[in-house]
Amino acid sequence: MTTLFRNGTVINVFTGEMEKANVLIENGTIIGVGDYDEGDETIDLTGKFLAPGLIDSHIHIESTMLLPYEFARAVLPHGTTAVIADPHEIGNVAGTAGLRFMLEGSRGLPLDFYWMMPPCVPSTRFDESGAVLSAGDLAPFYDDPMVLGLGEVMDYTGVETRGPELMKKIAGAAARGKTVNGHAPLQTGRALDRYIAAGVTDDHECSSAEEAAERIRKGQRVMIREGTAAKNLEALLPMFDPPYCARCLLATDDKHPADLLTGGHIDMIIRKAAASGKNPVTGIRMATIQTAEYYGLKRTGAVAPGYRADLIVLSDLKKMQVEAVYKDGRLAAEKGKAVPFKRPKVSAPLSERVKNSMRLNPVSSEDFAFQQKGVHRCRVIRRIPGQLLTDEELRNVDLGKGFDLEKDILKIAVIERHHMTGHIGLGLIHGAGLKAGAVASSVGHDAHNLVVIGTSDQEMAAAANAVKECGGGMAAVKDGKVIGKMALPYGGLMTDRSAEEAAKENAALRASLTQLGLPEGEELFMTTAFLSLPVIPHLKLTTKGLVDVDRQELVELTVD
Amino acid sequence: MTTLFRNGTVINVFTGEMEKANVLIENGTIIGVGDYDEGDETIDLTGKFLAPGLIDSHIHIESTMLLPYEFARAVLPHGTTAVIADPHEIGNVAGTAGLRFMLEGSRGLPLDFYWMMPPCVPSTRFDESGAVLSAGDLAPFYDDPMVLGLGEVMDYTGVETRGPELMKKIAGAAARGKTVNGHAPLQTGRALDRYIAAGVTDDHECSSAEEAAERIRKGQRVMIREGTAAKNLEALLPMFDPPYCARCLLATDDKHPADLLTGGHIDMIIRKAAASGKNPVTGIRMATIQTAEYYGLKRTGAVAPGYRADLIVLSDLKKMQVEAVYKDGRLAAEKGKAVPFKRPKVSAPLSERVKNSMRLNPVSSEDFAFQQKGVHRCRVIRRIPGQLLTDEELRNVDLGKGFDLEKDILKIAVIERHHMTGHIGLGLIHGAGLKAGAVASSVGHDAHNLVVIGTSDQEMAAAANAVKECGGGMAAVKDGKVIGKMALPYGGLMTDRSAEEAAKENAALRASLTQLGLPEGEELFMTTAFLSLPVIPHLKLTTKGLVDVDRQELVELTVD
Repeated sequence: MTTLFRNGTVINVFTGEMEKANVLIENGTIIGVGDYDEGDETIDLTGKFLAPGLIDSHIHIESTMLLPYEFARAVLPHGTTAVIADPHEIGNVAGTAGLRFMLEGSRGLPLDFYWMMPPCVPSTRFDESGAVLSAGDLAPFYDDPMVLGLGEVMDYTGVETRGPELMKKIAGAAARGKTVNGHAPLQTGRALDRYIAAGVTDDHECSSAEEAAERIRKGQRVMIREGTAAKNLEALLPMFDPPYCARCLLATDDKHPADLLTGGHIDMIIRKAAASGKNPVTGIRMATIQTAEYYGLKRTGAVAPGYRADLIVLSDLKKMQVEAVYKDGRLAAEKGKAVPFKRPKVSAPLSERVKNSMRLNPVSSEDFAFQQKGVHRCRVIRRIPGQLLTDEELRNVDLGKGFDLEKDILKIAVIERHHMTGHIGLGLIHGAGLKAGAVASSVGHDAHNLVVIGTSDQEMAAAANAVKECGGGMAAVKDGKVIGKMALPYGGLMTDRSAEEAAKENAALRASLTQLGLPEGEELFMTTAFLSLPVIPHLKLTTKGLVDVDRQELVELTVD
Repeated sequence: MTTLFRNGTVINVFTGEMEKANVLIENGTIIGVGDYDEGDETIDLTGKFLAPGLIDSHIHIESTMLLPYEFARAVLPHGTTAVIADPHEIGNVAGTAGLRFMLEGSRGLPLDFYWMMPPCVPSTRFDESGAVLSAGDLAPFYDDPMVLGLGEVMDYTGVETRGPELMKKIAGAAARGKTVNGHAPLQTGRALDRYIAAGVTDDHECSSAEEAAERIRKGQRVMIREGTAAKNLEALLPMFDPPYCARCLLATDDKHPADLLTGGHIDMIIRKAAASGKNPVTGIRMATIQTAEYYGLKRTGAVAPGYRADLIVLSDLKKMQVEAVYKDGRLAAEKGKAVPFKRPKVSAPLSERVKNSMRLNPVSSEDFAFQQKGVHRCRVIRRIPGQLLTDEELRNVDLGKGFDLEKDILKIAVIERHHMTGHIGLGLIHGAGLKAGAVASSVGHDAHNLVVIGTSDQEMAAAANAVKECGGGMAAVKDGKVIGKMALPYGGLMTDRSAEEAAKENAALRASLTQLGLPEGEELFMTTAFLSLPVIPHLKLTTKGLVDVDRQELVELTVD
């Protein structure tokens, strides 16, 4: 069975040239590009462009809140035919079972899911995560051809000081000829040399062209990241020009479902770059052959003989208008809709393990009471809207009461939810903005414990219990009643709903926050997701208590 | 132990930029490039350039007539620190023992020898080679980290028709994620698509820019070849410009010892390109990071953190004046001389097998007598000076006599020398130019049987026996006496002498040919080396007799 794509303009990713050529496909493989004139089936591409399918070089699927099957349905219409994913979040929740859950749940889909094994689970010793992944835990995964290496080595200090377990993980990947992803924001000069020399060969955290150029000169590939949370495209536009463009890839890192549906995926990054005057073909080359060759993917990422027929048809190049998507020669999406396909079967024990991730007893209002009473000088986490960074503020707070709504000082709790330890870290937050009620979420990087912020102990308990009851997710409570909820029963991170439903649920939940006194559009759940991550400065809260991130030390709530 | 290279101009192969920077080395690895100012040892590079060591992307070491040890000594001073070699010739002579002989003989040298397993041994069914290499024979070699894939798949017709054993070899390499070298001169359009789609990812046989551009557009890497026999640089100079240069590598393919010593190696190709106005940095990028990344060599081919300290110091970039060469951080050559290093030990059985490759009984003048007598209309091989191609001529020849010196019609014989079969193919050659005596050589692509050309049966026998007696090599005989000789006891292909001695011996041998009536500089041994290769048109001679290459058929000497 042969298929002939005729009369299209083929994007040649090897040279950047465009050629009028016919393309012949047989059994999912491109067998010729040229003057072919016969096929069992013929598809006319007059006036259209044919390019290779797009590849996201670094994404956490969990950030989309979708299972791989639904993720594929959402991104195929945008021209994505492969992703390199770091299952970092589910690894923190469910360890190797979580990783296997993702691998099994992505097999046989018309989108290639390649995986990078997360090296920093947990991220620090302060994290009470659901699992600890050792070098020995990761090694067996490298036998899987869909596993391409070690995920982002976030603990750059650990690398620079040559921490033995981390170096063992890097060596384990290197010994198998695998790739090692980087994450070392703002590192430069000698520190960066030391990080790179350990064997880390890319970075997706560059926020300036200078930062990116230094990395390229030092041999790394730079992933130009434009996701929902972090957006670096504008700053990195100069990377679309020679001599840097040949060493860049495109990535989304974290991407929310509504943003995927309305904005797009990798197509969106190229569209934005083109709107800023950059050549869309440069972006296509980054997201196809350059990514494939970097990761050692054979026969992937080009319209050329011997390559897999992962193809996208574009009606407009600058606008990256994707008309149709072919995966291994078969139609996978058309006019914005994925062609129906089978949902992979995940073995029951893995599924059960991932679905039973809310391992904590119900909490009550007493759990949120500070041990100390009376007015004390306290360390308060100051939220900075739109940022993941927080500051430390010293404020006098009446701990018997614990809330000061007028001064926007609320309670925050991080409840251990993996091992029934009953550990609860309690703290104070300034700037969360709630005027009533409480919110809770099981999405709390990286350990994904249950993060709760509220205006009363009762409502905090209600919000936490609501999340527990739906097997993980997010909830908003007012006057003791659940007014918004999004169930994320898979690891407390993912839903089994479609992207459309997930986006709708998420929008409704966020809308409910206005009833708690927040302005419309306020992304409080983005805040809760990062308040317990003790690798982002300056003051964070874990199940063990407050962490001074800069000193990497637990600190007391009170300073008097 | 750290070494600091200070005050040099570093060639950045990732960007093509040049940067004033200091480079710090520790334990053979580059640990930093920048403002480093301290090292246990300091080397001043003021006014000089620092570049990565050069890599030959495709060479047959046997063509240099040198063993790997002596080859390394010869090319290190030219800045070569790695080669990707196809041990095709020794494979034809001694099979897997020959391959292992090369692998063992190249271990631990200050030059990395990577190997490609020869897929076409023998080249055709007409060849009586010393060994037949099956897919099963090659497979175990892929466990060796120095083996990077399958060598040049010369039998392009076999690929285009999907010959099962050949496809098994390609599949065997692909299954291990290895590279497959190509050789498909002048193939174009659909035939080329079919060849490439089989999984062949490079070619070194391009003789025009159009041919090279087509291959690059179709995904292949193009090796710009400039060796002793085949010279394609001039025709391929346009490939030094974008968008093609990023997909090109440099190669010598076949290189004679004198040419290595006086002309150079990969440095010579870059020097010539620069003399034609091309950017030498483009050539350096081709021969370093581009070759390393194509073959999947990690930490090789750049001056950057984490890379192996394979470095060359250049006093003049355009002239590619190599002053010093460092391999894994240690001085390996300086001012044209290699630093002394240890000769690898090769296990005795392998060495013995390779050294006892002349397995034939002594021949006598009777062996060169045609069975038919009297005048017949005969197929005569017409030599075309300076070419590997031959023509077929029909001439009336008195076979009882067999020679017609006035018309420059001589006898040629190809004597089986691997299995004591006594097979001798006899034929006639026009244009060899000998006025007296005879020559013989055990270098006869690809089966490397003993090729003899002469003006009398007695002298042909004497020349053949002289080569047998020195265990393989080349000889010239006049008046029954050996007047020139070069012993190549290793497989009948390689000497254990140094490049200097080999070049001297070879020059003396070639000079002796003037006594046989040849003009000075005539490369008759180049002719003998290709007269028995039945894949180069049009009429060739094997141990089984004359081969019509175009029809791939044995043909009779006489046509009447």
